Amino acid sequence: MSSRTSIRTLPKNLSIAIPASFIDVYSNLSQKTDQIGRIARAAAINRVSEILVFPDVSSKNQAPQRRLITRILEYLDTPQYLRKHLFGKHPDLRRVGLLPPLRTPHHPTEKRARKLSEGEIREGYVFRKDGKLVVDVGVEKPLPFLRPVSSRIPCRATVSITRNPYGMLTAQPATPPTPEVYWGYKVLDIKQPLSDFLKTNRVYDLIVATSRRAAQINEIWKELHSRWQKAKHVLVLFGSHNKGLGEILQQEGHQLDTLTDFQVNTVPNQGVETIRTAEAVFLSLSVFRLLEQRY
Amino acid sequence: MSSRTSIRTLPKNLSIAIPASFIDVYSNLSQKTDQIGRIARAAAINRVSEILVFPDVSSKNQAPQRRLITRILEYLDTPQYLRKHLFGKHPDLRRVGLLPPLRTPHHPTEKRARKLSEGEIREGYVFRKDGKLVVDVGVEKPLPFLRPVSSRIPCRATVSITRNPYGMLTAQPATPPTPEVYWGYKVLDIKQPLSDFLKTNRVYDLIVATSRRAAQINEIWKELHSRWQKAKHVLVLFGSHNKGLGEILQQEGHQLDTLTDFQVNTVPNQGVETIRTAEAVFLSLSVFRLLEQRY
Repeated sequence: MSSRTSIRTLPKNLSIAIPASFIDVYSNLSQKTDQIGRIARAAAINRVSEILVFPDVSSKNQAPQRRLITRILEYLDTPQYLRKHLFGKHPDLRRVGLLPPLRTPHHPTEKRARKLSEGEIREGYVFRKDGKLVVDVGVEKPLPFLRPVSSRIPCRATVSITRNPYGMLTAQPATPPTPEVYWGYKVLDIKQPLSDFLKTNRVYDLIVATSRRAAQINEIWKELHSRWQKAKHVLVLFGSHNKGLGEILQQEGHQLDTLTDFQVNTVPNQGVETIRTAEAVFLSLSVFRLLEQRY
Repeated sequence: MSSRTSIRTLPKNLSIAIPASFIDVYSNLSQKTDQIGRIARAAAINRVSEILVFPDVSSKNQAPQRRLITRILEYLDTPQYLRKHLFGKHPDLRRVGLLPPLRTPHHPTEKRARKLSEGEIREGYVFRKDGKLVVDVGVEKPLPFLRPVSSRIPCRATVSITRNPYGMLTAQPATPPTPEVYWGYKVLDIKQPLSDFLKTNRVYDLIVATSRRAAQINEIWKELHSRWQKAKHVLVLFGSHNKGLGEILQQEGHQLDTLTDFQVNTVPNQGVETIRTAEAVFLSLSVFRLLEQRY
């Protein structure tokens, strides 16, 4: 239905899964880093809550690829002021300097403590300093941290800022302000074959496979839109440059249509021979976002 | 309507217009080239027939930017075997080597004359060799060119290949096999202000402005879909990182809604603060392509 009134639906949990081999077509670390950065941007623009990286070539140990992809994705999701605490000078991160920032709400750019607002929520790094618990929230000095968090110290934590009547700032544990405010994505390194992962799924109530050979999205729009609207947590799967999801699952002895709810071609009648994974993620997520809306 | 039968609609002429300043946020030629390359890929994937580059900062001479953008876009649209004929070693092209190829049907990869098929259409470069007209179509040797083209020689031309009964190959002028086969995009350097260009338009029967401040696409979907289906030649306008289309036209003393038919936000509820032009082109074109389809 066409309507001029703005009907905003709250974003649901959206996860995407990408194959570890997608970076194999790129010959050097700069290019691989660039492509991983594009996936991070596509995910953030489209409010993806979780990125899964799965092995797709059973004959090969893909742990190095999975680690490279997950490390760079996590690095990009981390606010700049926390990166020095959480990431060492790892060789995987030699080329991240040129990547554009995500510019998400959980990456605040304000660096002055006096500009922090009461109740402001930030990602912080909790550590001990002179025997006291403090948290780095990206301003001049770490703030006193009011209660210990359950995890081991030092650790990353979401905190809220409090200003007491004397103007003193403290921080305490908080939960991210989702779903209204986009708070970045989690990264999961899926070590098991994709088919095993999907068979034991208890999390996703709608699993959509993107496939060049599947029905065009307009042909299944009504069914997909109806299911998407009802779903609480959607998982969208992407194949690689070389191998579609059908092939990947077939190699594992499974069928795409038994392990996924929908198979859809999001770029019908494409003008080029091949679309790269990062491009497919960009294109497809912007199409799937339309399913969040009412018409 | 949801239907399992494949209803393929032929793509209509789709033009996009991008502001010359979009590359200004990038500090070096490699980054600028990379972003222009992304727009070329987004255009090719989505069968864009024409890319317009327009001046958007009236206080500045943007000719160098417009030339850089148009030159790289044209270079990428040119089959590899024609680039040596048509592009010298221009400084603007110092960083094009790392860009991914478009992989469109008008960029054939077969380099052996014996593999050319009767009636095959290729882009060629017509020139005189030993007094005879020949055309380079990307195989070992140029082929005899049967009729002179009207343009000055040497020139680029679309040709069809003929194999005579004795196996001899010749080429003759042809028209591109559009619209079934995507044959790349033309590039237009718009020297006049965007408002002047739009006011004198006699080509586009539907002009759509992308704008973060406009109605969400789902809210105007029905009207836009209906107009898009009827249109013969659609023009989609993009603003820049810094300035929306409304601001650009306002500086020229005009209103966005009087010069365009629709204003639409293609990325409602975006998770990030700013979306770069190349990203916006990728996201928006994949959304607009859905309007080509029937539901």
